[in-house]
Amino acid sequence: MAKVTVLGAGMMGSALCVPLVDAGHEVRLVGTHLDREIVQSLADRGFHPKLGLELPRSIRAYPLESLHEAMQGVELVGVGVSSAGVGWAGERLARFVRPGLPLVMISKGLEWNGESLQLLPDVLTASWPDALRRAVHPAAVAGPCIAGELGRRVPTCVVLTGRESAGLERLSSLMSTSYYHVSVNPDVVGVELCAALKNAYALGVGLAAGLHEARGGQLGSVAMHNYEAAVFAQAMLETERWVTALGGSRSTVVGLPGTGDLTVTCNGGRTSRFGRWLGLGLGISEAVDRMAGATLECLDILRVLSHAMPTLECRGLVRPSQVPLLVHLMDVALAGAPVNLPFERFFGPE
Amino acid sequence: MAKVTVLGAGMMGSALCVPLVDAGHEVRLVGTHLDREIVQSLADRGFHPKLGLELPRSIRAYPLESLHEAMQGVELVGVGVSSAGVGWAGERLARFVRPGLPLVMISKGLEWNGESLQLLPDVLTASWPDALRRAVHPAAVAGPCIAGELGRRVPTCVVLTGRESAGLERLSSLMSTSYYHVSVNPDVVGVELCAALKNAYALGVGLAAGLHEARGGQLGSVAMHNYEAAVFAQAMLETERWVTALGGSRSTVVGLPGTGDLTVTCNGGRTSRFGRWLGLGLGISEAVDRMAGATLECLDILRVLSHAMPTLECRGLVRPSQVPLLVHLMDVALAGAPVNLPFERFFGPE
Repeated sequence: MAKVTVLGAGMMGSALCVPLVDAGHEVRLVGTHLDREIVQSLADRGFHPKLGLELPRSIRAYPLESLHEAMQGVELVGVGVSSAGVGWAGERLARFVRPGLPLVMISKGLEWNGESLQLLPDVLTASWPDALRRAVHPAAVAGPCIAGELGRRVPTCVVLTGRESAGLERLSSLMSTSYYHVSVNPDVVGVELCAALKNAYALGVGLAAGLHEARGGQLGSVAMHNYEAAVFAQAMLETERWVTALGGSRSTVVGLPGTGDLTVTCNGGRTSRFGRWLGLGLGISEAVDRMAGATLECLDILRVLSHAMPTLECRGLVRPSQVPLLVHLMDVALAGAPVNLPFERFFGPE
Repeated sequence: MAKVTVLGAGMMGSALCVPLVDAGHEVRLVGTHLDREIVQSLADRGFHPKLGLELPRSIRAYPLESLHEAMQGVELVGVGVSSAGVGWAGERLARFVRPGLPLVMISKGLEWNGESLQLLPDVLTASWPDALRRAVHPAAVAGPCIAGELGRRVPTCVVLTGRESAGLERLSSLMSTSYYHVSVNPDVVGVELCAALKNAYALGVGLAAGLHEARGGQLGSVAMHNYEAAVFAQAMLETERWVTALGGSRSTVVGLPGTGDLTVTCNGGRTSRFGRWLGLGLGISEAVDRMAGATLECLDILRVLSHAMPTLECRGLVRPSQVPLLVHLMDVALAGAPVNLPFERFFGPE
């Protein structure tokens, strides 16, 4: 049993508290300034309004102002803020971090700093003093996990990655329960790239549903599943090209972080709903409006990659011709081009 | 323009005639003894009762007795019989086959002859005289393709494989249209294994829907998608193990034949419906009854592999511990064991 503090009381940070409690830990959940209503609701009646779920009452919810109190004696820190808040979270946590204190990130995404793609564990530590940054390497959880399902204890398999590979096995056994299976994958680059890219590619798979409806099609076993499956397969091939070009491992793409996470994002996620609107022929801003304020990680990652592509190409890492699906998704979702996937450029030699 | 004859007027053989006609070929479709009503309906009114679709009237439908007539001047032969009929089809076609006449198989599956796993192109030629068998190497089409969608000209991407790799590019351009994209993959073993295994593994993914319903769950974005995605990812890892153990290429698994075909089979197929019944807790025979006579390739492939496993293990090719998902699916679907996936044995080192 350990004292665990999770920063970020959104859906995923809060859902993670359920297996942590079930694993026997003392769990404190700290909301950001965006989570005030959630913290209040948890404190009042143990109910998480976004998850639509009662959480175990032993989870203690704190407002951000009580972060210091929530970090007393902490033995494991979870970071569950949105990807845009990771730098901020790093600054907030810096004073509590010390060598030997494990940190686990749940946030997913990539940033472009004008020179290279930054993985989120590196964004978290960017503001830390050099000595601390050299001594503490945050771990990260990735793989197919819908928060609402984890909170309801649906069997879920994820991977834990990190540069401090010696501690990962211990951390994984701290977090695992009978329904939350945490396996170790030391390929940080591959895992983080898969976690970020899947949002862009799930948008592509989602287009099919919209195109089908736009033609007057009904839901059913005959729809545009052939189209969806072709996009899925090309997405996996392109993900493999990204991962190997940037130093990750091919096998990460085949497993949970790649095929598993793209599957779940297509089945359960807002990204594919957004893709559906674009497939139906809505313009970008209209499609964004229909999403009623939902965070659209797919647009974030497409923007990051569109900024990064020229430099990466110049360095000989990734050429646009190797990732024709992604290039078309940028055209559609960032520049408003009509959907017209270049299937004839898929599945050829790289 | 070529004279093309397709043997087998079931859903997939017939659907393939649509792009063949659109590619400008003269297309003859020959029904087996199982296809009499289909041939009659096509001849009478151009309607395919199983596809629920009018086919182009230029497709000429023949009963089996007119095979000889339908093969006059043929320049390309398609084999679209069920996997159980492939040996029979080989015998029927032997007298028409000659070196230089391309054959393309659409049937998918594997057979076990007591010594080794047989790919269907080899089953097709098994009865041929040695000289013919050495001279003619059937090609095969695989990848994500629901027949009812291809027949409706939904954009579809497939691969063409075969041992006679020199002819594959020409064959692929003969078959391709603006919506039917045929790329070449010379990895016969990998492509055929993926095509066969996906039925077994889609059964596993389908279990989740049944388990969810059995718990009183509703369809929706919060269901058991985490479970499904974990099964999907483990399926891909195990498929990769099968493919590499038997001499195929890892990259085939990442593309259309692997991830693409499993996706479409989970979304559109009878296999996942059968998995759902087992997940709901029905016994094997009751679940088979509910499928109302549909061909269950998943049971065929599980049976074949259960017969093959002891020999393959003895030869050091595939150990049961490397494919724990498949072993459990055999227990469930062949031996009636309750569904209880061994997630703790997934995603570890092989």
